[in-house]
Amino acid sequence: MTEVHNLRDVAIIGIGETQIGELWDKSLRELGIEAGLKALKYAGLHGDEVEKLYVGNMSAGKLINQEHVAPLIADYAGISEVPSTRIESGSASGGMALAEGYKAVASGMEDIVVVGGAEKMTDVGEQEAKDILSSTADQEWETVFGATFDSLYAMMARYHMDNHGTTKDQLAQVAVKNHANAAKNPNAQYPRETSKKFVKNAPMVADPLGMFDCAPISDGGAAVVLCPAERADSFDGDPVEIVSLGQGGDHMAVHERRDIGTMKATERAAKKAYKRASVKPQDIDFAEVHDNYTITEIMAIEDLGFFEKGEGGRATEEGKTELNSDISINTSGGLKAKGRPVGAVGLNQAVEAVLQLRGEAGERQVDQPGYGLIHNIGGTGASAIVHILRRWS
Amino acid sequence: MTEVHNLRDVAIIGIGETQIGELWDKSLRELGIEAGLKALKYAGLHGDEVEKLYVGNMSAGKLINQEHVAPLIADYAGISEVPSTRIESGSASGGMALAEGYKAVASGMEDIVVVGGAEKMTDVGEQEAKDILSSTADQEWETVFGATFDSLYAMMARYHMDNHGTTKDQLAQVAVKNHANAAKNPNAQYPRETSKKFVKNAPMVADPLGMFDCAPISDGGAAVVLCPAERADSFDGDPVEIVSLGQGGDHMAVHERRDIGTMKATERAAKKAYKRASVKPQDIDFAEVHDNYTITEIMAIEDLGFFEKGEGGRATEEGKTELNSDISINTSGGLKAKGRPVGAVGLNQAVEAVLQLRGEAGERQVDQPGYGLIHNIGGTGASAIVHILRRWS
Repeated sequence: MTEVHNLRDVAIIGIGETQIGELWDKSLRELGIEAGLKALKYAGLHGDEVEKLYVGNMSAGKLINQEHVAPLIADYAGISEVPSTRIESGSASGGMALAEGYKAVASGMEDIVVVGGAEKMTDVGEQEAKDILSSTADQEWETVFGATFDSLYAMMARYHMDNHGTTKDQLAQVAVKNHANAAKNPNAQYPRETSKKFVKNAPMVADPLGMFDCAPISDGGAAVVLCPAERADSFDGDPVEIVSLGQGGDHMAVHERRDIGTMKATERAAKKAYKRASVKPQDIDFAEVHDNYTITEIMAIEDLGFFEKGEGGRATEEGKTELNSDISINTSGGLKAKGRPVGAVGLNQAVEAVLQLRGEAGERQVDQPGYGLIHNIGGTGASAIVHILRRWS
Repeated sequence: MTEVHNLRDVAIIGIGETQIGELWDKSLRELGIEAGLKALKYAGLHGDEVEKLYVGNMSAGKLINQEHVAPLIADYAGISEVPSTRIESGSASGGMALAEGYKAVASGMEDIVVVGGAEKMTDVGEQEAKDILSSTADQEWETVFGATFDSLYAMMARYHMDNHGTTKDQLAQVAVKNHANAAKNPNAQYPRETSKKFVKNAPMVADPLGMFDCAPISDGGAAVVLCPAERADSFDGDPVEIVSLGQGGDHMAVHERRDIGTMKATERAAKKAYKRASVKPQDIDFAEVHDNYTITEIMAIEDLGFFEKGEGGRATEEGKTELNSDISINTSGGLKAKGRPVGAVGLNQAVEAVLQLRGEAGERQVDQPGYGLIHNIGGTGASAIVHILRRWS
């Protein structure tokens, strides 16, 4: 890996997100604008101070017949002259957009950068939305033969159960925990607690994953405002620093991977992020991890180094990932219960991390967190991005 | 604009592109891989030295039902572990990907970065491909009411003719010139000369634009390899420096713009690029400009400052934009005659600029060029990106 030099420290000075849900009265552009304007307001900034906009979005082309969404959102936010770029990496589009925004500021090319993400998924039927999610797997070698997003993850779950003794009870506990956290999050799509029995009795989607093992189809937007950390004190509130990022890749098709109980892309991304930040997994106090399925959270907390491989399910069952336990995982409710507006997810995670680090997370506040980590994956895990954050001081 | 500081100089050390055309035997991933491997070979590099891949692509989701194309191409190129990110900005996707690659290297975050672009357009019918191009205009306020890509550009052409006296003869001359250049380019989709009479007699598409005023639907891929200029001498051949870049935005819908005979996004992008490079339009010896329609080239050579507003048509008619005249415009043949594999276009332009600056452009070589400029726009001009290049010494 390249020796990083001359990079400026980067701070998040503004955050904003919409309610997540089936928002039939809001279009993609409205979701993007609402999140962006909230983030600017939070920072005490006006639109004419924005130098660059990045937009994370998975599939507006297929979902609403609109490509070229970055200038669209810039325009309708009243900043048409501002350069804007869309970033797409399946479900990791938001996190990847954050990474590009970080580079723009760290390099010195821009000072005030807005990174937003939005997805409008409910203008098509649920089956069509799922088919579009499946188009982030390998079309030519997987989906064309009938494999779906659900079934590919179900294979990983089965593999993990067979090889590591993970149980359906443990999978269910991920959902129970995340719903408990979401119940404390006013922006969550499903702010309701649930029970292990309810999760296990839900209709089967793809064995062993039932309906409550799967994240929902959602509409929503989220955004952050970045600036050089040296300028951060001149804006409202306490800034949060992006200490480091790491990005990883893996084979596109699940059958090309040797061990489908491990996400290599996550491991690779985390390794870089930890090294650049000079921290260890044990230094992380809370993490928003990608939990599009319950099994994905279990793999993530292993692959990020919080627990040994194969121990994620047991750790979850023992309550080690609950709010203010060993490590607080998905305090926001995660994709599972906060919701999954795909292109926004990585920014939803960043919003939660900032709230936690500022002590503004209300009932779901982690006790005096030092480092937070956010983790976003694309497709069935062919791309992954990890950011490590802490309070700037 | 931010004061740029601490940026490393960035060089292009490798280039590669596929034949452009209706390539029924090649898939998107094959096009991306072919271009990327050619670029690596040109630089004398192996895949395991690549630290990051950017992929420009407009609409693989709609064209081939495949999102998440960056890790797909990385994987099938044999570098699945390499972090990869897709950039989309309509027809400017390739140029925008180059801009992000530049930042990755200039910032010091990465050393060896491959930027590729590819589009596979002929797996759908011509009308569907055109509808997908139209989805880069404003779906909610333009295309849903029947406006198409062709008709929106036709309005600009009519406006330019009415306000600046531009003639159909002048539009036709753009096509004649670019076909003459393409006839000297072995990778061009239409390497054939044409005549003004033939262009003017072509079937009408959207008055005043006939079939020969429009760029074709194409398949193709192109790629470049970037590294810090200080390391460039250790690779094969003479490196070319990316001296600067500038990005601009504008209203998404054409009816929101006050003067549709000018592309504000181009003006804004060019202004930044010239300022950062400390050069003037008069210093540029050749340029690859976005000519998806003949009128677009005329607007571009005005908005980039090569000719006064309203003089682009006359300058073209007087031969001032021919090879080795006042300024050599679209020596490659441009989108018009070299072809338009949308996501690759910005990289096709970079490939041509490097060939010219290295003196490797064969029969279409510009005489001892100093500075070259490449210009790529998205949609109907809501996004634009300009890079200025010269030989590294």
